[in-house]
Amino acid sequence: MPVNLSAPIASELRPIAGIRIGTAEAGIKKPGRKDLTVFLLDEGAAIASVFTQNRFCAAPVQVAREHLAGTSGIRALVINTGNANAGTGADGLARARRTCAAAAQALGIDAAQVLPYSTGVIMEPLPVERIEAGLPSAIANAAADQWGAAAQAIMTTDTIPKAFSSEVQIGGARVCITGISKGAGMIRPNMATMLGFLATDACVAPALLPQLVRQLAEQSFNRITIDGDTSTNDSFTLMATQRAGNAEITSLESAEGQALVAALGRVARLLAQAIVRDGEGATKFISVRVEGGASSEECRKVAYAIAHSPLVKTAFFASDPNLGRILAAVGYAGIEDLDQTLIDLYLDDVLVAQRGGRNPDYREEDGQRVMQQQEITVRVLLGRGGAQDQVWTCDLSHDYVSINADYRS
Amino acid sequence: MPVNLSAPIASELRPIAGIRIGTAEAGIKKPGRKDLTVFLLDEGAAIASVFTQNRFCAAPVQVAREHLAGTSGIRALVINTGNANAGTGADGLARARRTCAAAAQALGIDAAQVLPYSTGVIMEPLPVERIEAGLPSAIANAAADQWGAAAQAIMTTDTIPKAFSSEVQIGGARVCITGISKGAGMIRPNMATMLGFLATDACVAPALLPQLVRQLAEQSFNRITIDGDTSTNDSFTLMATQRAGNAEITSLESAEGQALVAALGRVARLLAQAIVRDGEGATKFISVRVEGGASSEECRKVAYAIAHSPLVKTAFFASDPNLGRILAAVGYAGIEDLDQTLIDLYLDDVLVAQRGGRNPDYREEDGQRVMQQQEITVRVLLGRGGAQDQVWTCDLSHDYVSINADYRS
Repeated sequence: MPVNLSAPIASELRPIAGIRIGTAEAGIKKPGRKDLTVFLLDEGAAIASVFTQNRFCAAPVQVAREHLAGTSGIRALVINTGNANAGTGADGLARARRTCAAAAQALGIDAAQVLPYSTGVIMEPLPVERIEAGLPSAIANAAADQWGAAAQAIMTTDTIPKAFSSEVQIGGARVCITGISKGAGMIRPNMATMLGFLATDACVAPALLPQLVRQLAEQSFNRITIDGDTSTNDSFTLMATQRAGNAEITSLESAEGQALVAALGRVARLLAQAIVRDGEGATKFISVRVEGGASSEECRKVAYAIAHSPLVKTAFFASDPNLGRILAAVGYAGIEDLDQTLIDLYLDDVLVAQRGGRNPDYREEDGQRVMQQQEITVRVLLGRGGAQDQVWTCDLSHDYVSINADYRS
Repeated sequence: MPVNLSAPIASELRPIAGIRIGTAEAGIKKPGRKDLTVFLLDEGAAIASVFTQNRFCAAPVQVAREHLAGTSGIRALVINTGNANAGTGADGLARARRTCAAAAQALGIDAAQVLPYSTGVIMEPLPVERIEAGLPSAIANAAADQWGAAAQAIMTTDTIPKAFSSEVQIGGARVCITGISKGAGMIRPNMATMLGFLATDACVAPALLPQLVRQLAEQSFNRITIDGDTSTNDSFTLMATQRAGNAEITSLESAEGQALVAALGRVARLLAQAIVRDGEGATKFISVRVEGGASSEECRKVAYAIAHSPLVKTAFFASDPNLGRILAAVGYAGIEDLDQTLIDLYLDDVLVAQRGGRNPDYREEDGQRVMQQQEITVRVLLGRGGAQDQVWTCDLSHDYVSINADYRS
């Protein structure tokens, strides 16, 4: 059961002028479910993407990087679930290229204008012939109002599709933003998430997109973790179709640029947090906020140490205010000269530890009350400076173990 | 159920001349179980210890470091379970000092000659008055043949006591070695384990002990992990009572020094591995061996990434050869210039992946066969150089979640 997250209402997802989406049942892993998605971009759309920093990055990630670096405008995205095409060596690369070639042939474009995306089990050969067979049907049913269907078709262990939409006035024009994401395990994005797609019809200088997508990832997908496992296939792609009619944004620091960054950022954070809310086995949504650091890097280190600790995560699952485990995680986060006597710990508004020891006024029932909530903020004050950072995570439950002990069956 | 580990037979544990051990029921957390242990050292014993690198190190760790740095010979160790006295601030330090003072008074020695050790729940005040009340009885029943009782009395979530003994001829004399350890969760020692005590009657220059204990920790306790949580209380203490009658060892590089290092190392590894075999919820014992690295540091990084991955650990629990998860962990271990096309992966003797992709001859049933074993070796060849390293870990099961969701109740 996702934590405070419900399925999107398809009719409320705004189409983005210049983008059509189609889905199909290709039977990649199992028959009877949509597992193939194509995004078709009209000419002139700008696109940028960030990918996993995992050195075992998947074949489609390698091919997509290559194609994005080329000079041909990207016109199509092909996304399959059920197979990650990672850990597949040279043969995997060839199969990713065949996917692009098949889409290119059907659309009358160049293979270098297609970006491939895969997600699913690692180290199994991609059944590319099933993708080739499924592509004509996906392309044939492509339409502008299929964001909800796409959110559904890219799911793996997700229990619920993830899609958000927003509308904002920029430079006198109405700008639409819609995005989808997926992922529920092997989630500790390093540059981007499992799969995230964000699109806007805004007119924005294409040269700004690489910086924009990195900036958005840093405040959304790069701040979530479920199990600390950085995937081989993380990809977060931003598309701008240039159709909204606003005056072209040529600087992200201008008033219009800032408005666009804020509006895109809000949707990106919702998409990223939705992944945590639907994390494998998640029963709680935890915000870990670390303040008073000498740098935001060290705040992030501490936040991730807390968010990755199996002992902290199982305590949240049990609603047990065994909060010394949080102090232990702060202590091993890797800050060499950390002074434990300066550290305060809050659970929501409850001051649990003060100057490194238990707050004398702290009462177990106050901690208990917060631990029983579905949404909890852990706040650590390091007392070392003015920097801060935060990450979002979930608890570790029996269902996480069950899901991952059964994933391939 | 511990993995291939049975309780020690008390009569087979060799006493160490110059060391007596006593235990008592102090009722620190719950009544009716031995939770207080004292080690009494005859004058002239040499001692050295390594402690956790966790910056939230416990009060007893701080006090023990102080006392070891002093000039008074250490004559007693006081160990309590049921309370870690960590995250307890200045008050916790005062309570650790009171523990030492009480033992010193009972024994007619100086408080600075006593080392305190605590293990149990974090951020609760240590009930020092119960320790004071229990000490006379522990001291009164101290005897040389109580190693088995001590192994029992220092347990927390351990399901089985851990003790090993060995005998070796050095310089014509019979040298005895006996050690005990405890710990089953919050185990990713960084310098030492939760609690480990290793003693020998060998004559060895006291000045060599600090180097010797670090060297032993590096090949034993510093190579195990259960959940990646580095404890606040890790302590590994080596005692040499100088009674064996061998000519004093004045160099660890001499033939006699090497023989002692080897014999102590063997027991230290057994003690460390016993902690993993009895890891919380463990059903499998996994050796992760990484070879062909440019440095042993990078081999260790890769080994720990694999050993800490919840996805890898749940796959072992399920006996599911979902081995792409191991490649993913190799990829995010933090080697910047890793080339995935050079990497081979073995599961015991089965070549699973070759040059970064699935070995064409690999058959699922071969992986399945190994995954069903209780003892499994993962071997990763990086193809970057001649360095290697290894760590020992266990799987992640439903019982780990249950144990840690219930720990305080």
